Amino acid sequence: MATQHHDPTTDSPAGAVTAQALAGYLRAQATEFLRALRLHRETGAGAGGSEESVEAARALRRSARRISGTLHTFQPLLDTDWAESLRPELAWVSGTLAREHAYASRLERLLTALHRLSGSGAIPAQSSGAPAVGSRAAGAAPGPAGPPAHPTATAERGNLTVGAAKAGALLERQLTLARTRAHSSALQALGSSRFHAVADKVALLASEVPLTRPAPVTDLRPLAGAAEERLADAVAALPLITAGSPYNAEALIHGLSPDPAPHPQDAPWHQVRLLLRLHRYAREVLLGDEEPVDLRLLAAGQALDRHRDASEAAAAAAQAARTPRIAPATAYALGVLHADQRHEVEAARYAFQRCWQKDRHKEGEAVRAR
Amino acid sequence: MATQHHDPTTDSPAGAVTAQALAGYLRAQATEFLRALRLHRETGAGAGGSEESVEAARALRRSARRISGTLHTFQPLLDTDWAESLRPELAWVSGTLAREHAYASRLERLLTALHRLSGSGAIPAQSSGAPAVGSRAAGAAPGPAGPPAHPTATAERGNLTVGAAKAGALLERQLTLARTRAHSSALQALGSSRFHAVADKVALLASEVPLTRPAPVTDLRPLAGAAEERLADAVAALPLITAGSPYNAEALIHGLSPDPAPHPQDAPWHQVRLLLRLHRYAREVLLGDEEPVDLRLLAAGQALDRHRDASEAAAAAAQAARTPRIAPATAYALGVLHADQRHEVEAARYAFQRCWQKDRHKEGEAVRAR
Repeated sequence: MATQHHDPTTDSPAGAVTAQALAGYLRAQATEFLRALRLHRETGAGAGGSEESVEAARALRRSARRISGTLHTFQPLLDTDWAESLRPELAWVSGTLAREHAYASRLERLLTALHRLSGSGAIPAQSSGAPAVGSRAAGAAPGPAGPPAHPTATAERGNLTVGAAKAGALLERQLTLARTRAHSSALQALGSSRFHAVADKVALLASEVPLTRPAPVTDLRPLAGAAEERLADAVAALPLITAGSPYNAEALIHGLSPDPAPHPQDAPWHQVRLLLRLHRYAREVLLGDEEPVDLRLLAAGQALDRHRDASEAAAAAAQAARTPRIAPATAYALGVLHADQRHEVEAARYAFQRCWQKDRHKEGEAVRAR
Repeated sequence: MATQHHDPTTDSPAGAVTAQALAGYLRAQATEFLRALRLHRETGAGAGGSEESVEAARALRRSARRISGTLHTFQPLLDTDWAESLRPELAWVSGTLAREHAYASRLERLLTALHRLSGSGAIPAQSSGAPAVGSRAAGAAPGPAGPPAHPTATAERGNLTVGAAKAGALLERQLTLARTRAHSSALQALGSSRFHAVADKVALLASEVPLTRPAPVTDLRPLAGAAEERLADAVAALPLITAGSPYNAEALIHGLSPDPAPHPQDAPWHQVRLLLRLHRYAREVLLGDEEPVDLRLLAAGQALDRHRDASEAAAAAAQAARTPRIAPATAYALGVLHADQRHEVEAARYAFQRCWQKDRHKEGEAVRAR
């Protein structure tokens, strides 16, 4: 099995990282969970939420994910029944809390894209929070200004502008409704006895971690190495050669297929995103507070977040286009938007391939330079 | 001024390429024009046309473009009045003949793209000439098969499949009509007294080229060099840094703007395409039959052809979406198709940037290797 070799500080004389590091990490995350929960209750939870309330929910999800992931990676060192009963409950908490945020950021992503695609001014006023110009092509030169309109094209101009505006309004209606529902569900969940049971378990965890005695292994590193290997295997199964070839047109290949949501080709990438997360958490356990930020992992994770977000935004545009009795101009705008987001999916895969291979390229160059 | 230095065979002791080379080239192209015209008349000209008739029209356009371009580049060596009266007439001939072909290949491109985007089976039978899978991502792995449909999604599936099929049928109807009209116009043009006057002039050119006497310059190479410089200047004005950055999202930036056809950002690229052509023809004059194929120019020209074709196909999809009373599903499919072709535009710019910079990269590597 591979061992962690990123940081020499973990190479104690024996070279081992013991279960105490695991217990310390879990206690710290449990404490963080309780702190965030208290903050969330204090800051109130109106629809939309205050900035502190949103931040508290984010911190809750963050620690819930870390506890859940750590229970998974280091399960042999932990009481099995306890770990297996807590993990799905933590996943339920973080999943329930994530949905409201996901709908909000999906709407913002889609309205930002509509702005970019429209030039300007075609989006309803409610979306003023979105930047006026897409951030995707940062540093790219702005396109030349459009030519003066043909007098005869005025009606058509109006028609298409209305299309983009109507598409924006439709998405705003649908995703705001979904967000409001997700908010209610989250509030309901946080007040449920099911959640109180989870909070009680996490409170116990903050004081005592149920380690297996005697410990079946005395070193955490092989278990962390196994998590890294699962990640490496999943990455190796990705179509990285295609992804690294720009404009391969793979992501839109089922753009008009009958069942566009979710694209089955996206699933292996979503899986890698989750495995990358588990690997990162395992590194945190091993390296503790002195964890150096691995910029490559960070960039790879961001590319996969963007992949997931664009994939879901594309599906939302396709879904909105199925709304009965919409105008053709609205449907056209949603089609352009869907394709745009599917190309974002492709761009994210390309970005992931680039940063994932970066170290290898450097190694290759070093070899050639010899 | 830059001089031609691609081929040492032109470096006669004096180094000069004389007006005789120009006269020889023009006579040869005029002869080719007349041969193609005879062939076109012999092979008939029914709508759609036989293979020979299509090939004859292509040869006619090819020689008309070469004569016209050569008159432009080497104008100081030629009788001004004669050259300035013949050039627009040749442009009219090649433009008129090109339209039928353009509509046919635009329809094929769009139906091929719809096939690719739909998985399969959503395109009407008439389009069986188009390949079932897009050729854009040659060598890319096929996407995974779609999941089984949800029972409740059957109506929606049908709806979207119909959308792609209806979009294909609409494009087929509109572009076939345009093609038929272009065919009639071409036939009418070829039978007109205007065309007979052009043919008479070309027939004279095949026997005698009206060179200026005495020749104002004794070497063609500075004039050819000026054509190359005009190309280099136009390329230098292109946003090549953006184009070389994959997924820059520039091409779709006005995808929903009110006046999508033609995209003003495409114009400088179309201009470079024409200047590249003039440069290629000037090289043919200088290098004669022993012209070595410059693979870089060839690839750059193909990228710009693809750019032009995708740009016009995207405009045709946008135009079709403005047809009154189309179904929302049809409009949605046309929106996806429009965005897909705008990404083809972006991909073509990337391809052009890559092959244009190739020599520079090689030079850079050679310098580093020293």
